[in-house]
Amino acid sequence: MTKKKAVLVIGAGDATGSAIARRFAREGYIACMTRRNADKLAPLVAQIEAEGGEAHAFASDARKEEDVTALFQEIESKIAPIEVAVFNIGANVRFDILETTARVYYKVWEMACFGGFLMGREAARVMLPRERGSIFFTGATASIRGRAGYAAFAGAKHGLRALAQSMARELGPKGIHVAQLIIDGAIDTEFIRETFPERYALKEQDGILNPDHIADAYWMLHQQPKDAWTHELDLRPWLEAW
Amino acid sequence: MTKKKAVLVIGAGDATGSAIARRFAREGYIACMTRRNADKLAPLVAQIEAEGGEAHAFASDARKEEDVTALFQEIESKIAPIEVAVFNIGANVRFDILETTARVYYKVWEMACFGGFLMGREAARVMLPRERGSIFFTGATASIRGRAGYAAFAGAKHGLRALAQSMARELGPKGIHVAQLIIDGAIDTEFIRETFPERYALKEQDGILNPDHIADAYWMLHQQPKDAWTHELDLRPWLEAW
Amino acid sequence: MTKKKAVLVIGAGDATGSAIARRFAREGYIACMTRRNADKLAPLVAQIEAEGGEAHAFASDARKEEDVTALFQEIESKIAPIEVAVFNIGANVRFDILETTARVYYKVWEMACFGGFLMGREAARVMLPRERGSIFFTGATASIRGRAGYAAFAGAKHGLRALAQSMARELGPKGIHVAQLIIDGAIDTEFIRETFPERYALKEQDGILNPDHIADAYWMLHQQPKDAWTHELDLRPWLEAW
Amino acid sequence: MTKKKAVLVIGAGDATGSAIARRFAREGYIACMTRRNADKLAPLVAQIEAEGGEAHAFASDARKEEDVTALFQEIESKIAPIEVAVFNIGANVRFDILETTARVYYKVWEMACFGGFLMGREAARVMLPRERGSIFFTGATASIRGRAGYAAFAGAKHGLRALAQSMARELGPKGIHVAQLIIDGAIDTEFIRETFPERYALKEQDGILNPDHIADAYWMLHQQPKDAWTHELDLRPWLEAW
Repeated sequence: MTKKKAVLVIGAGDATGSAIARRFAREGYIACMTRRNADKLAPLVAQIEAEGGEAHAFASDARKEEDVTALFQEIESKIAPIEVAVFNIGANVRFDILETTARVYYKVWEMACFGGFLMGREAARVMLPRERGSIFFTGATASIRGRAGYAAFAGAKHGLRALAQSMARELGPKGIHVAQLIIDGAIDTEFIRETFPERYALKEQDGILNPDHIADAYWMLHQQPKDAWTHELDLRPWLEAW
Repeated sequence: MTKKKAVLVIGAGDATGSAIARRFAREGYIACMTRRNADKLAPLVAQIEAEGGEAHAFASDARKEEDVTALFQEIESKIAPIEVAVFNIGANVRFDILETTARVYYKVWEMACFGGFLMGREAARVMLPRERGSIFFTGATASIRGRAGYAAFAGAKHGLRALAQSMARELGPKGIHVAQLIIDGAIDTEFIRETFPERYALKEQDGILNPDHIADAYWMLHQQPKDAWTHELDLRPWLEAW
Repeated sequence: MTKKKAVLVIGAGDATGSAIARRFAREGYIACMTRRNADKLAPLVAQIEAEGGEAHAFASDARKEEDVTALFQEIESKIAPIEVAVFNIGANVRFDILETTARVYYKVWEMACFGGFLMGREAARVMLPRERGSIFFTGATASIRGRAGYAAFAGAKHGLRALAQSMARELGPKGIHVAQLIIDGAIDTEFIRETFPERYALKEQDGILNPDHIADAYWMLHQQPKDAWTHELDLRPWLEAW
Repeated sequence: MTKKKAVLVIGAGDATGSAIARRFAREGYIACMTRRNADKLAPLVAQIEAEGGEAHAFASDARKEEDVTALFQEIESKIAPIEVAVFNIGANVRFDILETTARVYYKVWEMACFGGFLMGREAARVMLPRERGSIFFTGATASIRGRAGYAAFAGAKHGLRALAQSMARELGPKGIHVAQLIIDGAIDTEFIRETFPERYALKEQDGILNPDHIADAYWMLHQQPKDAWTHELDLRPWLEAW
């Protein structure tokens, strides 16, 4: 196949998003990655290029409709058709209900859910005429269950799951594969290393999620033939209590 | 008990909200009801008064934090302690994903989810020091399952369910009963009568929900002793396919 | 109404079953109660009679088809039409998977699920021609989630929930109300008092379920008008972590 | 790796079971397959051998404890350690509740759930000392939702799901990967071709599940590194309504 294809990763600033971008780049996809500050993506672009891939970093605010539509237009017109779109923005915060300001509640939803809607809809717009493509959303345990202190985060993640389910049912019969990954467990990141060192120590026994292995699941989903699509799967370390 | 207590119904403009307000008023609660235009609540106030109850209508925008906090302050300081708070605003719209504007997606969430957060948090604020009270949310089938065309509505309702679950877990052990009712089926309203006449015809065989019976479920939940609280129940007509 | 009606409680040997029988007896229903050894039900019969009710104890093995069909025939022909049938047999055991014998796995299912099927089907048989009646199943947290050590118990309870859901969908449109109560928490019983004394101590603050309050929920469900039926609800103490 | 490993497929008589056995055989696993009548597996053995693999057929009744324990012992002692055990027996029957005989209800459970327990437990027994291995169960939509006419089938499948969840939680932290695949849609089989020809016609547009693609999902699950295990995923054709 000589025709170029792009993967778009919205929220490529963390370990998971980076791993997804690199995974698809290794498979020949042009990695298009966003972050509010594109400069911070320079090391990732360099890494992908060093691995022989092609990558582009975009400064784009996932919560701004004009940013998102401009992003799709630029990639589609100047780079390649977007074959895969991944929404990977989280906003895992914990606040007692009385401490949850309206601003926090709104911001968490705007980042982790509204941004997903904008990406999902624009991805559907470019993919529907082609009758192909994958739209994936990164979920969490908060996608399926509320918990004390997580009204805002669980609210956003539940909304994102409803989006994934609704889009999957509407777009599946039109050739678009919509799926969601419920990631339940600590991921190997700077944040976990610094904040939860005792948990990070589980890494030696594979007790925390390796972002590359999460990325493998995204790639696997994208490779599924259309007679056997998965719409939701969970990923968690073997040692995880659940 | 001679001490007066209030029930607050946010979104009393529809058949269900009206029935809930009347139900609690008949049990001696002072019914405090909101709608964006308070004048439209005049018939309901009159009806409750005719039934021997006390009722107050408030113009209040459920999506505006300052409105909601002012509402709680006014009721608590001038009328009676809010013993029960019911969030009953829906926003059942259907749009294909490409037709779902950012404005629609945001507005549906703001009305059906963000408003619930504001009410829930303010209710918790006044109830926690008293270590008692009930906070109830009206849900729908869209609370538990996405569906083609319902990304916005299901997103908001899923978010509201996450709120109910998170608040129930946090506030239950502090004496506050948080619950959600999943109403699955057509309700006996003007809207159904005019829009779905063939469905409305099922009324003769009890095939659509009677708002008074929905209200009974809210009252029953509020009466539950604290050793046996229900946090989620469904309500649907016997003829409903599900 | 002068016509007599019976409530059948299969598994009336525990606190919950007894409370349900008494609750319906107080409402004028003839309480028909089973246990493998009917003699042990004598105190419950006496109690119901002392409260002005009518009660009958039956020795019946809920796992034996011939016992169950004979039981329905005897009550229907000699006592009164069965208006309500409640299946209340649990079998809460914990075994590591390697310690779970085939006999245990089978026995737990036979008691807690197969018995429910036999009762449910025979209840449907007598109720369908009358186009009315309630069939209720007692569930537990194990009805909705597996847990380490609970392969047998959760398996049986999951099967019972599938039965309730399947029967509700088939029989609802024929006038039969099928529902299930998910009871999540310790119940005020001898067993809890002796085995988990520190947990039992929560009783003073309403931290364990009062069987009479559980029974109220069964009665409430049976009273629901057919335009607003509940098919599943949870019951748990306010202090319960979940 | 020179050490031989076996995959055990209980219920290899259908298209899915055959495809799973062949898939693992192509990866170098010795395929051990059961059916009540081993002779009927001869073509599958021949096919695997023709593809360069090794295969053994066993006559074994999955519902008989002595058969299952003997099967594990024979494979482990004479062939190779069982690295993967797959339970693939369904029993999809539809009966109105009144037409569901006790015999049918019991047989469906015995085949589709009890057999899964026996295999699961024996697999755990041989895998636990090695602290590795995969135990997979084939599920269906009936695993997660009851439906009119499916009290028996949904009961068994719900029980199997509870088994998978309970075992996953107990055995995961001991190195055993337990998972379940919810297959929702028609599979390309003789049965579908003959019974639902109009549905089978969807095959031309990939509208029914290809058993080889289902088998790919089993292989993928077995390949997952232990820091990122999936415990449940769904598989359905793009055209499927759900």
